Amino acid sequence: MSHIHRFYSAAISDHMPQIELSDEEAHHAIRVARVRDGEKVSVFDGNGLECTGEFERTGSHSALIRVQESTYHRPSRIQVTLAVGGLHRDKTQESVVRCAAELGAYRVCFWNADHSQRPIKPSSRWHKTAVEACKQCGRFFLPKVDTASSLGEFLEGHNGPSVIALLSEEQTGAPTFAATDRLAVVIGPEGDFSDRERTLAATMGAIPISLGENTYRSEVAAALLMTLVAFKLDELGPGLNLCLQ
Amino acid sequence: MSHIHRFYSAAISDHMPQIELSDEEAHHAIRVARVRDGEKVSVFDGNGLECTGEFERTGSHSALIRVQESTYHRPSRIQVTLAVGGLHRDKTQESVVRCAAELGAYRVCFWNADHSQRPIKPSSRWHKTAVEACKQCGRFFLPKVDTASSLGEFLEGHNGPSVIALLSEEQTGAPTFAATDRLAVVIGPEGDFSDRERTLAATMGAIPISLGENTYRSEVAAALLMTLVAFKLDELGPGLNLCLQ
Repeated sequence: MSHIHRFYSAAISDHMPQIELSDEEAHHAIRVARVRDGEKVSVFDGNGLECTGEFERTGSHSALIRVQESTYHRPSRIQVTLAVGGLHRDKTQESVVRCAAELGAYRVCFWNADHSQRPIKPSSRWHKTAVEACKQCGRFFLPKVDTASSLGEFLEGHNGPSVIALLSEEQTGAPTFAATDRLAVVIGPEGDFSDRERTLAATMGAIPISLGENTYRSEVAAALLMTLVAFKLDELGPGLNLCLQ
Repeated sequence: MSHIHRFYSAAISDHMPQIELSDEEAHHAIRVARVRDGEKVSVFDGNGLECTGEFERTGSHSALIRVQESTYHRPSRIQVTLAVGGLHRDKTQESVVRCAAELGAYRVCFWNADHSQRPIKPSSRWHKTAVEACKQCGRFFLPKVDTASSLGEFLEGHNGPSVIALLSEEQTGAPTFAATDRLAVVIGPEGDFSDRERTLAATMGAIPISLGENTYRSEVAAALLMTLVAFKLDELGPGLNLCLQ
């Protein structure tokens, strides 16, 4: 991948001859990235569209891109939603959002767990973090980040199969299931799922999967599951054929 | 897994009737975890040995465990070393160590990259972070964390096959290789490998693998590769059989 500077703007379309950067993006381009006039850069809308063209500074805090080419990138074969229970620390939430965005999540939903001490407050940092992650890793689809008042609310609103990460003793073989276009991956809160949540998930058809004998922090469980799913979807390249002797 | 409190002590053996906790561990047990006399706890040595027994407070800042049972846990089938280039931020290094420890790395080595701005300084936080991660996730083997002055020094010192994560266009099919007892996973620095490092790695037999089209931060690349290796080693449970339609 060439390392051209990437900017974000939700409001672009494929027949714009030029795109004005937001104040914030323009400031960053001029003061931090020090992009020069005529340099090739790109703008993406977080929904698959990428416009590349030449950078042009139009003021001390404003800049535009003279578009030369527009490309619609293909979305992932499956929209994967990562649903994480009861995370309260800002840094941890942002870490999950960043990691999920890098690994191509379609949506991140923080749900209030029975074992949560207080409700999760939506943060304006989530969107910002997702944009930064997409810019940095070269993805063109920005995950939506939202909250659900409970696991039940999340599962009811999710239209498609879901897997739920439980401890190893609860696994009943490697689940085989078909995913057509969307999949939810549910990760429990720090204090684990409540009995009510387990029963609810089972009733609502969530498929239990195990991550082995160890207990992972939410960020690591998220990275791990997103990796396994991306690997299954052939989105990580051919991976490695490790033969054990 | 039962949630008993876990303590760390490098200096235990399997025929000790009782184990005195370090001041720090005792302080944590008494003041933070508020472990009660007679409560079942465990101590691990970071090298596979776990002693479980009853907690006994012996002073305001001291405590011991009356050992009832000692267990040697089996190590991973392969010792995986994660070798990460040119990471300077403390938080990022700790994040890599924590993640690697959770995912069962045998060793983490930070090597000075040609594109590094300054040499990596070993930190006493690394060991602490690895201990905390092992305690929290239930692992019994503590990764060693060290540094190498260059990629060449790291590869020379590593006795076994190594894979190196390169961008997708450089991949030549899914590599098949045999790993007997150790494997190194090499991740490049933020500014990517230098040409010299690429040539060197190729000369020294490092097997290039691709992670697909996107560029991951070191923490995510580490989690991703450790996950793929652990999955191949059957250490993540049966995983999931995702059928695509």
